[in-house]
Amino acid sequence: MTEDRLAALEARVQRLEDELAIVRLIASYGPLVDAGEADHVADLWAEDGTYDVEGWQMASRDDVRAMVGSDGHQGLIAAGCSHFLGPAHVTVAGDSAVAVCESILVRHRDGGFSVRRAGANHFSLRRGADGWRIQDRRTRALDGSTEARDLLAKGAKGEVL
Amino acid sequence: MTEDRLAALEARVQRLEDELAIVRLIASYGPLVDAGEADHVADLWAEDGTYDVEGWQMASRDDVRAMVGSDGHQGLIAAGCSHFLGPAHVTVAGDSAVAVCESILVRHRDGGFSVRRAGANHFSLRRGADGWRIQDRRTRALDGSTEARDLLAKGAKGEVL
Amino acid sequence: MTEDRLAALEARVQRLEDELAIVRLIASYGPLVDAGEADHVADLWAEDGTYDVEGWQMASRDDVRAMVGSDGHQGLIAAGCSHFLGPAHVTVAGDSAVAVCESILVRHRDGGFSVRRAGANHFSLRRGADGWRIQDRRTRALDGSTEARDLLAKGAKGEVL
Repeated sequence: MTEDRLAALEARVQRLEDELAIVRLIASYGPLVDAGEADHVADLWAEDGTYDVEGWQMASRDDVRAMVGSDGHQGLIAAGCSHFLGPAHVTVAGDSAVAVCESILVRHRDGGFSVRRAGANHFSLRRGADGWRIQDRRTRALDGSTEARDLLAKGAKGEVL
Repeated sequence: MTEDRLAALEARVQRLEDELAIVRLIASYGPLVDAGEADHVADLWAEDGTYDVEGWQMASRDDVRAMVGSDGHQGLIAAGCSHFLGPAHVTVAGDSAVAVCESILVRHRDGGFSVRRAGANHFSLRRGADGWRIQDRRTRALDGSTEARDLLAKGAKGEVL
Repeated sequence: MTEDRLAALEARVQRLEDELAIVRLIASYGPLVDAGEADHVADLWAEDGTYDVEGWQMASRDDVRAMVGSDGHQGLIAAGCSHFLGPAHVTVAGDSAVAVCESILVRHRDGGFSVRRAGANHFSLRRGADGWRIQDRRTRALDGSTEARDLLAKGAKGEVL
């Protein structure tokens, strides 16, 4: 009886910890990428994790690190920008998980700020030896494309791509 | 002694699960509504749940489903939009709960993106046989009206409308 | 054995409660400050808590309360605004914690809405007799300054300023 209750509690607490760990991981992306912390951003991904964002295909943690260090990204943060991600909705299934959130990119230019893009973000994650990491992330602009809408739908239903 | 500690833990874990379930439910609204997933959006509400957003009064889950399928909403998502909700602040009291968040509506038009509205969102929720559902949601533009400010104040204090 | 498992569970649940309490506290800031709830905003800070936001140095809970009641802030909310904070990333260490989030300020003016600023927010928090409170908050515009980027980097790594 006590054994059953302990085991049930341990499973419930594990589920809460998993969900919160992933929410927390995704909440760190914007601050880290806008700070230009290339190593820390890269470490959110698995060694062989991918990030596919319009016009940019990254196939490893090293590729993600290179993206943060690129002239394109460094130019963005030198002028001022916010990769502003909304709260992630997470679906955990054992050692895998799917998460979804919307995002906006706000840029500082000519002394003012403006929204340059709204995006759909689908994440597939895996639990590894060092905890949860992003296995695949795909991001598309919410410009009416069915692909962006599909990322949102699949993400919110906990489905992989 | 062990019994007391187990019971206390079970109550604390239940509280965490409740709060996180509601945060998660609200985090799914934007992705689902921008994907046009009418059935899934509707299922966030109780069968007789209401949604009162400027100029639109929905009095049931069916009404919410019809809103997502309406020409107005379908036109929005075909052009590209993000109903971007901020992180929800939740107050649980037994089988009832109140949540509040701010939101922005970002639209894609003429090749660019812009913020069309900032809003205040007050949610009353109930725990039913299938888990938490929205009983009433009210949304008002943050245009200086006292009504919008009242939604924020009551929501953040955990008060129903 | 049972004792060990109970103690481990109690510690894990406490950690979850702490993290969620801080996420929740920060999620209430926007709704409360945009509603003009000066006392409730002030109560998010410790009695001697500080808030340093470009051009405004607050050195106590009373100073925060006065900020919300000021002509400047009252003018903002009378016209309509949203201090829209993203999901907080929290690092708890015993009775201290560090949190970080990005934010945007959306204003209503001339019948439309626009993003007036994107910001970096670093929070240091302490657990007191009444729970978690903000000890120090620093906010800087994401205009390319190294100071703003430093707030994000330190915040996401759980470092104090």
